[in-house]
Amino acid sequence: MEKRTEISTLGEFGLIEHLTKNIELQNASSVVAVGDDAAVIDHFGKQTVITTDLLLEGVHFDLMYTPLKHLGYKSVVVNISDVFAMNAMPTQIILSIGISNRFSLEALDEFYEGVYAACEKYGVDLVGGDTAASQKGFIVSVTAIGEVAPDKYVKRSTAQKGDLLCVSGDLGAAYVGLLFLEREKKIFMESPGVQPDLEGESYVIGRLLKPEARKDIIEFFANSNIVPTAMMDISDGLSSEILHICRQSNLGCVLYEEKIPVADQMKQAAYKFEIDPTACALSGGEDYELLFTVSQSDYDTLVLNEEVSLIGYMTEAELGANIITKGGSKYELLHRGGIISAPIPATTEIFNESEFVHIPEHLKRFIIL
Amino acid sequence: MEKRTEISTLGEFGLIEHLTKNIELQNASSVVAVGDDAAVIDHFGKQTVITTDLLLEGVHFDLMYTPLKHLGYKSVVVNISDVFAMNAMPTQIILSIGISNRFSLEALDEFYEGVYAACEKYGVDLVGGDTAASQKGFIVSVTAIGEVAPDKYVKRSTAQKGDLLCVSGDLGAAYVGLLFLEREKKIFMESPGVQPDLEGESYVIGRLLKPEARKDIIEFFANSNIVPTAMMDISDGLSSEILHICRQSNLGCVLYEEKIPVADQMKQAAYKFEIDPTACALSGGEDYELLFTVSQSDYDTLVLNEEVSLIGYMTEAELGANIITKGGSKYELLHRGGIISAPIPATTEIFNESEFVHIPEHLKRFIIL
Repeated sequence: MEKRTEISTLGEFGLIEHLTKNIELQNASSVVAVGDDAAVIDHFGKQTVITTDLLLEGVHFDLMYTPLKHLGYKSVVVNISDVFAMNAMPTQIILSIGISNRFSLEALDEFYEGVYAACEKYGVDLVGGDTAASQKGFIVSVTAIGEVAPDKYVKRSTAQKGDLLCVSGDLGAAYVGLLFLEREKKIFMESPGVQPDLEGESYVIGRLLKPEARKDIIEFFANSNIVPTAMMDISDGLSSEILHICRQSNLGCVLYEEKIPVADQMKQAAYKFEIDPTACALSGGEDYELLFTVSQSDYDTLVLNEEVSLIGYMTEAELGANIITKGGSKYELLHRGGIISAPIPATTEIFNESEFVHIPEHLKRFIIL
Repeated sequence: MEKRTEISTLGEFGLIEHLTKNIELQNASSVVAVGDDAAVIDHFGKQTVITTDLLLEGVHFDLMYTPLKHLGYKSVVVNISDVFAMNAMPTQIILSIGISNRFSLEALDEFYEGVYAACEKYGVDLVGGDTAASQKGFIVSVTAIGEVAPDKYVKRSTAQKGDLLCVSGDLGAAYVGLLFLEREKKIFMESPGVQPDLEGESYVIGRLLKPEARKDIIEFFANSNIVPTAMMDISDGLSSEILHICRQSNLGCVLYEEKIPVADQMKQAAYKFEIDPTACALSGGEDYELLFTVSQSDYDTLVLNEEVSLIGYMTEAELGANIITKGGSKYELLHRGGIISAPIPATTEIFNESEFVHIPEHLKRFIIL
């Protein structure tokens, strides 16, 4: 039987001590870290980028199929993805958690293992936070801090007419991964003895459970002397994010369906659910790729990076935001659902409440961290 | 009847737009605020102080007697109190909220009124955040950012032997205020028709519902060229906080009961509950006063400030942390309960869950914001 230590046996300060005792700071800018009223950060002439996300059990994640280690990892990644989306490098995070007594210390340790794995991978320091007892459910609040030279940060509102519209990686896979996990959860709830059928779907499931933030793209920009004219990360789906850039930059755009990058594994998986891969890419969300615009003069440099796809260009606002389908038809880009008439729900909307703390044994072989 | 607008009618972006449309930035350091992936902050050569708190309904606050406007105000104040406790000046906050559908837009507006009132009073900018739907309860996560000259921040771990132990304002009142509100809640639950008996208790109730952070003390330090050797704010009660400074600075201390500042209103109120005012000051919590140590050479300057009380001094660690009672006896200082044998519960422990959203009509005359 797994060991179960009640968190209440440690007390609040004992718990903080336990969770933070192995921290090794990686950034010279982390002057004072955990253990005081506040952390102190030095800047060496740079500006600070700061962003936060609140993740709630039953709303943003389902612990029935989300291992706590993955949740910890993802909680950090989705935040520093926002820092990268400002063209900045993340340096510190602050993490608050609310936990009910259904979680043991061992469960919490799993969560922190994931947090520290992400911190190590992305070179960020955990410098503070808060722990609270919740009456119900797991609550995660992460604030990420990053640094950027004063003339290098990139907003959403500064795209220019004629700029190239680009995206990193591939899209839609996290959403299809979610469909698989929701299907298996449903089957498990109805027939606990049935073995899961997730063979060969580790790519799409991995995209949902263990997303990565595109540090490589930001490093590529720095090394290539490219400063995007606008940028944001894709958490809600491509079409919704493109419309943010259009609205905030007061522009329109043309997007080519055939240029939208999708992985073969995602396409095959989408067909199993009889849904259109393009719809998954446009509306699926949770991919944490970067969407950005660059000046046409950066084209020659940009095409050298195979992780970047050119998917369209920016136009004047009066022309609207449009997608040209593979068949050559033009449609208005919609906030959710893109070119399909029946919008697929956002990933955050189809998460359901679950009282399970541990991932069921039969799903454990999909733990890929 | 009060107007009730469902939050769902606005959508997430409509809600953010609604809640942030009147923000006027007060700090030149707030380069990019709400509306992008992250905020951008400039520092002009200073270091950044950053701290966070997670406040959960039913754990940290009870909406039966906490008006939402006060909750918004207090959520900001308790965080910037941590910034002051580093001898820094707060400049920005980031605010995330999780709300269930039992809250209307009007209720949320009340909360934000309090948030903006605190921002205005303390000169801080709200520069970002996150909103999420919660399945149950109100969740508030605030991260506060401040600035400090590199040689001026004050930790908890740097007190020196022989330093004077000091505290601002008066202690224990917030706890007694809580006792009154809990008593009235209990009476109201049993007999909704009975009028509340809180006459003359506005001081102690105000200390709980609308605490202030001690900006004046930090300004006094700056103007008097005093840099405390150690400092923290008092959220858990005086004895617990003194023990933090002792442990982190590896020192002992002597604390004089007769020197602990208590307000007359608190004393009279404590007697009504037949509890010792000193016990309230030592263990009550939620006062948000500053506890600090200064070098003896600062004595002459320090006594000029009537808001500061000298309550003891630091000793070597081997002598332990002790309190000298009014009767001249010496006791070991305990984490909770101080010199009394039956510890009083911390405020956060006696808060109970409540499903009420609005403060009951009969308590409304105590809304003092």
